Amino acid sequence: MPRKSKEEIASIYKQMQEYICKELEAGDGRGTFKEDAWIRAEGGGGETRIFQNGAIIEKGGVAFSEVHGPTPQKIADKLNLESGNFFATGVSIVLHPFSPRVPIIHMNIRYFEMEDGTHWFGGGIDLTPHYIVPEEAAYFHRRLKETCDAFDFSYYPKFKNWADDYFFIKHRQETRGIGGIFYDRLSANSDTHFQEILDFSLALGRLFPEIYTHFMKKNSLLPYGPEQKAWQGLRRGRYVEFNLVWDAGTKFGLDTNGRTESILMSMPPLAEWAYQHEPHPDSAEAFTQAHLKKEIDWLSYTA
Amino acid sequence: MPRKSKEEIASIYKQMQEYICKELEAGDGRGTFKEDAWIRAEGGGGETRIFQNGAIIEKGGVAFSEVHGPTPQKIADKLNLESGNFFATGVSIVLHPFSPRVPIIHMNIRYFEMEDGTHWFGGGIDLTPHYIVPEEAAYFHRRLKETCDAFDFSYYPKFKNWADDYFFIKHRQETRGIGGIFYDRLSANSDTHFQEILDFSLALGRLFPEIYTHFMKKNSLLPYGPEQKAWQGLRRGRYVEFNLVWDAGTKFGLDTNGRTESILMSMPPLAEWAYQHEPHPDSAEAFTQAHLKKEIDWLSYTA
Repeated sequence: MPRKSKEEIASIYKQMQEYICKELEAGDGRGTFKEDAWIRAEGGGGETRIFQNGAIIEKGGVAFSEVHGPTPQKIADKLNLESGNFFATGVSIVLHPFSPRVPIIHMNIRYFEMEDGTHWFGGGIDLTPHYIVPEEAAYFHRRLKETCDAFDFSYYPKFKNWADDYFFIKHRQETRGIGGIFYDRLSANSDTHFQEILDFSLALGRLFPEIYTHFMKKNSLLPYGPEQKAWQGLRRGRYVEFNLVWDAGTKFGLDTNGRTESILMSMPPLAEWAYQHEPHPDSAEAFTQAHLKKEIDWLSYTA
Repeated sequence: MPRKSKEEIASIYKQMQEYICKELEAGDGRGTFKEDAWIRAEGGGGETRIFQNGAIIEKGGVAFSEVHGPTPQKIADKLNLESGNFFATGVSIVLHPFSPRVPIIHMNIRYFEMEDGTHWFGGGIDLTPHYIVPEEAAYFHRRLKETCDAFDFSYYPKFKNWADDYFFIKHRQETRGIGGIFYDRLSANSDTHFQEILDFSLALGRLFPEIYTHFMKKNSLLPYGPEQKAWQGLRRGRYVEFNLVWDAGTKFGLDTNGRTESILMSMPPLAEWAYQHEPHPDSAEAFTQAHLKKEIDWLSYTA
């Protein structure tokens, strides 16, 4: 089977956006996505879908983009590429739920290709629970591992560590959440391999709404009060800090004149900061704080 | 008169912190500052004073620091300095009021000296009204201009433009607020000149609580409702974006293992984000949005 062209990949990713939106609407049960299409002056564009009037999801979006044209100098420098034309397509998602009992989730799948045939895939899924529940973390990581293992047994351990390192808030010395998987610059050494890596990204795309629907169903009716909302506000503040200070994609997008509203779709609806907040010892908040660490083997918690 | 030593400057700045805190407590009428002293492993330390239980000021702090030791490589690179020992002292302030009718304010005065005698002063005051009122902007800029003019007629125009350029949210193509003055690397060419630059920074320190007390008195009792609070939330979101994405001091501090809690003292208590929010035409919000621009001659609005 010949290798899929970049246009075909873009078209498949666009369908994936459509699929994920439908599944999330069904999972939320009330909200719907509103389309916001945009055009990039230098070539290509995208369609950002913003979730509105949700029952469970308070703010979030599923963004598709397909951009191309002469490689901007900053991209060439950063990626150590010759200049020439580039092509990039992908789907990005961030969802912030109303309830502090439901986790924040993020997914991205992307494909990059240069004029000279250089290409790679990147992506991942990671979870940021406001309250860490080990069994839920185990479920999340188990689902990721199963999906990875169907393609390559080396994926999960490698990409799990990569996520731990990537989603790290250096100035707080804490992880953004319980990680997940993150991969980048995954290139194919044959047409079969190319199809496999593409299929892997599509498997993640299909896994994503399944995982999030699981958490919406399981947790959105759990009770919470002002204390839990306050903690959620602080955790969302840390989410903002990671995305604006450390997230390579966000920084890069803002720095290279990307589409600000689509890039900052990841911001929570509301975030809070308090000076030197310390959770009460032995509280669920303190438990969460203590588990915002790299290298936790979440699979070992499986119930 | 011989030039003040770096230790004397640190001591004078520490007294300035004390003075400003007393004045702000008097202006607020209820809140008090809580001290939080810290020590820097590599040399020096600071005292961050956090405002608590305010009537008008919701969150903020007045931070003093005096740090020294071997110049960190990143500082040497950034400032184009030989390595060796450095010394830095300063006072930094950010105040976020409860009322959207009262502006957010920021001030900084700082002194930097290298072992070889290289030295400079930096600082400034800038204002971020949630609602821009031209007469208030004129008052603010007039007070800054008067203070600048008492020292050097070139200061205000130069430092006003510098603030416009510095407090610019590039990815939004808007200024953080109505600017003010900003200066850096101001070095003395004689002992008299040195004393003048030091005195200029002290004049700014004394001006600061006077200006903010003026706005607290004038505006804190003005009525507002949920609509104004929502707009304040969005403006605070932009404040967060500027500080975490563009503010050189914040980025640098977080990058060089600075004291996170003191650096992020500038964060608002609460911030909001909405996808592609557009104020209603002809509203006070739209007026403010339209005036978040560089090169506005605020003095021309003087009533």
